[in-house]
Amino acid sequence: MLQWLRNYRRASLTGDISAGIVVALMMIPQGMAYALVAGLPPVAGIYASILPPILYAIFGSSMTQSVGPMAIISLMTAAALAPLAAPGSGLYIVLAAQLALASGAVLLLCGLLRLGYVANFFSRPVMSGFTIGAAIVIALGQVKVLAGGTLAQVHIPSAILGGGAIAVLLLAKRYLARLLRRAGVSDSAADIGARLAPMLVVLGAMLLSSLLDLPGLGVQSTGEVPAGLPGLNLATSSTHWRALLQPALLIGFMIFLLGMSAAQTLALKRQEKLQSNMELVGLGVANIGSALTGGLPVTGSLSRSGVNFAAGANTPLASIITGVLLALALVAPTGWLALLPLPALAATIIVAVLGMLELDTLRTSWRYDRGDALALLATAGGVIALGVDVGVVLGVLLSLGTLIWRASRPHIAVLGRIAGTEHFRNIERYPAGTVPDVLMLRIDANLFFGNVEAVNARIEDELALHPAARHLVLVMTAVSSIDTSALFGLGELNLALRQRGIGLHLAEVKGPVMDRLKASDLLGTINGRIFLSAAMASDALAVK
Amino acid sequence: MLQWLRNYRRASLTGDISAGIVVALMMIPQGMAYALVAGLPPVAGIYASILPPILYAIFGSSMTQSVGPMAIISLMTAAALAPLAAPGSGLYIVLAAQLALASGAVLLLCGLLRLGYVANFFSRPVMSGFTIGAAIVIALGQVKVLAGGTLAQVHIPSAILGGGAIAVLLLAKRYLARLLRRAGVSDSAADIGARLAPMLVVLGAMLLSSLLDLPGLGVQSTGEVPAGLPGLNLATSSTHWRALLQPALLIGFMIFLLGMSAAQTLALKRQEKLQSNMELVGLGVANIGSALTGGLPVTGSLSRSGVNFAAGANTPLASIITGVLLALALVAPTGWLALLPLPALAATIIVAVLGMLELDTLRTSWRYDRGDALALLATAGGVIALGVDVGVVLGVLLSLGTLIWRASRPHIAVLGRIAGTEHFRNIERYPAGTVPDVLMLRIDANLFFGNVEAVNARIEDELALHPAARHLVLVMTAVSSIDTSALFGLGELNLALRQRGIGLHLAEVKGPVMDRLKASDLLGTINGRIFLSAAMASDALAVK
Repeated sequence: MLQWLRNYRRASLTGDISAGIVVALMMIPQGMAYALVAGLPPVAGIYASILPPILYAIFGSSMTQSVGPMAIISLMTAAALAPLAAPGSGLYIVLAAQLALASGAVLLLCGLLRLGYVANFFSRPVMSGFTIGAAIVIALGQVKVLAGGTLAQVHIPSAILGGGAIAVLLLAKRYLARLLRRAGVSDSAADIGARLAPMLVVLGAMLLSSLLDLPGLGVQSTGEVPAGLPGLNLATSSTHWRALLQPALLIGFMIFLLGMSAAQTLALKRQEKLQSNMELVGLGVANIGSALTGGLPVTGSLSRSGVNFAAGANTPLASIITGVLLALALVAPTGWLALLPLPALAATIIVAVLGMLELDTLRTSWRYDRGDALALLATAGGVIALGVDVGVVLGVLLSLGTLIWRASRPHIAVLGRIAGTEHFRNIERYPAGTVPDVLMLRIDANLFFGNVEAVNARIEDELALHPAARHLVLVMTAVSSIDTSALFGLGELNLALRQRGIGLHLAEVKGPVMDRLKASDLLGTINGRIFLSAAMASDALAVK
Repeated sequence: MLQWLRNYRRASLTGDISAGIVVALMMIPQGMAYALVAGLPPVAGIYASILPPILYAIFGSSMTQSVGPMAIISLMTAAALAPLAAPGSGLYIVLAAQLALASGAVLLLCGLLRLGYVANFFSRPVMSGFTIGAAIVIALGQVKVLAGGTLAQVHIPSAILGGGAIAVLLLAKRYLARLLRRAGVSDSAADIGARLAPMLVVLGAMLLSSLLDLPGLGVQSTGEVPAGLPGLNLATSSTHWRALLQPALLIGFMIFLLGMSAAQTLALKRQEKLQSNMELVGLGVANIGSALTGGLPVTGSLSRSGVNFAAGANTPLASIITGVLLALALVAPTGWLALLPLPALAATIIVAVLGMLELDTLRTSWRYDRGDALALLATAGGVIALGVDVGVVLGVLLSLGTLIWRASRPHIAVLGRIAGTEHFRNIERYPAGTVPDVLMLRIDANLFFGNVEAVNARIEDELALHPAARHLVLVMTAVSSIDTSALFGLGELNLALRQRGIGLHLAEVKGPVMDRLKASDLLGTINGRIFLSAAMASDALAVK
């Protein structure tokens, strides 16, 4: 914690300052936009951008992570609060902060319990499917803000403004960096300039709004943004803790997953090592900070952290500068923010989340592993059809379901000897010879509760195919662990084979596995021997 | 389906008939007792013992499974219905059948979708913990029936009857088989006689009840059991389908797990093979049958199926006989059943569930794998403290959690050459020599989303310990599969190593893994080579 501060080198300062400023410029419209997604007044998003980046800088482990409001977490916040209060109402605002507090407490507790490994409960395809589904839900939700009404009753001036903003943003995304580069701006500065397009679009829309009196035409705007720093918010609704528990668990989980995945991507580029338990603590404290200032649940965002990194952030000092600048923005006059037309803000949200629709994972997994591709599509479909909260549970079940499903189809090879050698290989792939009374099976999986029945069933099938076998040798080259369930499974196999007069032998058992087995009864009761190699087993057992 | 009937041999008939009769004798008090556990009138348990064994005999896959009411499933039924209706009320009875219908539909659907592998979501220690926790909850719940009131207000005659029944049952469990054997009864008949002790105790208690006028003393009895077969029950409460959905999923899951584990134990003894998808269908149809006759959710019970097996059941015909006999019991006069004193029935329940408290799994896992032992204790504690429904979810999370937790600590060995040979071994266990510019790591785990970050982190650690390495060779002997997440992880490792000028090579990649990798981009972009063996990699890469 704060190790970076003790070793701070002056050379890092320029990068940190410029990144802090750039991210602050990005964060003002983004914070307001994601508060809108969460059903909150825009200022809540700015409140949630002050303490969280500063606290994460102190407690987190990534050097370039930028913590603040994030589209998917805001969507989950809206979904969690919808059954409890009317969006934008006083209770709703209190509950949003309370949800941040509860999520932060969950994260902090998990960090203190060193549960960082829960980040591994989502496979990448499922994570990609979740992101795609959430992005589509968010974009669809903003269409009516963009259109200034339902699709049946489009408000023309709003739709023109919103549609125009989308067009400008898409063009900027495509061409702005190139244009800036041609104008002589350095590569990295051009990239950063292009990433600030949403800020420019928002400013332009505000200018248009005041020049053309868009509010007079019926275009909705954010409304007054109260000036001044947020007070210390200690308001909670004591009757809603129970209702918020489950959403807090799900949102805490996704805060961690999304934050880790953003941090990991940048850590790889910087050859840094992340501490998952420190990430839990950092994100937990950041959310508690957001709650204390009347904000909403926050996490690291890949796009924002990417800008932070690209703009030169060397240390978390950049995030501290961002947080301070956002506080200053609230101390300055904020009257002008009230002019911000909502359709333009909705346009920035839609373009931002469309950027999350990456299809590379789908493409790769479709070719490489159809099951993973189907899990991706099912998760995306689940988020869209059943909601973002059901999507999280579905994602965990699909990740682990594919794992258990695969485990229930273990690869087991019948081994034979390559003539004239000590080598035993899969007889289906090599010209290897077997002897009828010794059946040698190589189990290509760690043995655990998920495959114990399937492995025993496969062994029985092979024994049925080799009725002359008097000895079964399990070649354990690929078995790196045997859990308690599998230990019982081996015990049952041993008993069943003993009754039929078939010996059960093990060969090439790995050191750590053998150490473990010595603590069990299996080695004492096994109806056979333990051999160092497959060749030694075959030599000892085959009828000469 | 009904294959056993086409191949029926007359030699099986004697065994099937005697088993059918013995199980029917066992099922009458058991069905009434487990209806009591579920909060239902006793006759519901008998209704649930007619069609379910017959339908399972037609659709199931086990030869000796005995399907009917079961203690843990009744406990789950009571827990599911408690928030919806008052135990014993008309609505409660309708909802119990509706829950059986919903659970049966879930099972049937899972069977048709071939989801039999979900049986692998519970590890054995977790299953054992769940059973222990449920047994304790059931026993505690019956104590007040046994005592005829709360512990503060014990009803003396009830407590004497109940306590006496427990003593007789425990003594019978311990000594009856031995006594019968000494009296010249054959071993198997003596065992079966001992298992019928609950029936005898119940009959004895009924006799006592009428001789001593126990109801007059205030001892509660079952009350009138309506004679006659159950009518076709089509009553459902349309407003409660949604509330029953989640319980039906959890109960369906446990019906399958408990049924499979009972069937599996007997299948091992008979060297039979179970079809998990047929089990789903069989149990699903059995539950739908129970619903149609106004019963409750049912499954196979290990103790009852064990009696069926021991009494000589050769085919499911035994279960059909059982079902028919239970129907006949209802056609006969049932007035005498009304005399059954509840404390004696509670005594049979308590002794039966105490038999489920097997501690062998705890003992073994405590010595063999502390993590599994803790998962067992946590599941048992969860069932007792948080309820049986939370216990199911907790069990799945703990099973899969230990799996993911272990995966996040992959075993990776640094390999060196055993001097003068082609063999490469873990340098920590063997006197093996390394060369500084080639780091050879053997990954002892299948690569999947659960360990991809951990594996990459371990590799980075090893590279930091071996700064002179210009080549990294991953020896894949123990890697039997690489999922999409791990494929991306390898791609990222490849990219990171390329930037640092370190080659990434693979050795001893298994056939099926290589086949898969050929469908990906990795082999085209890898910054190194694929070697057949570790020795070939070392020879080719080491600076001479």
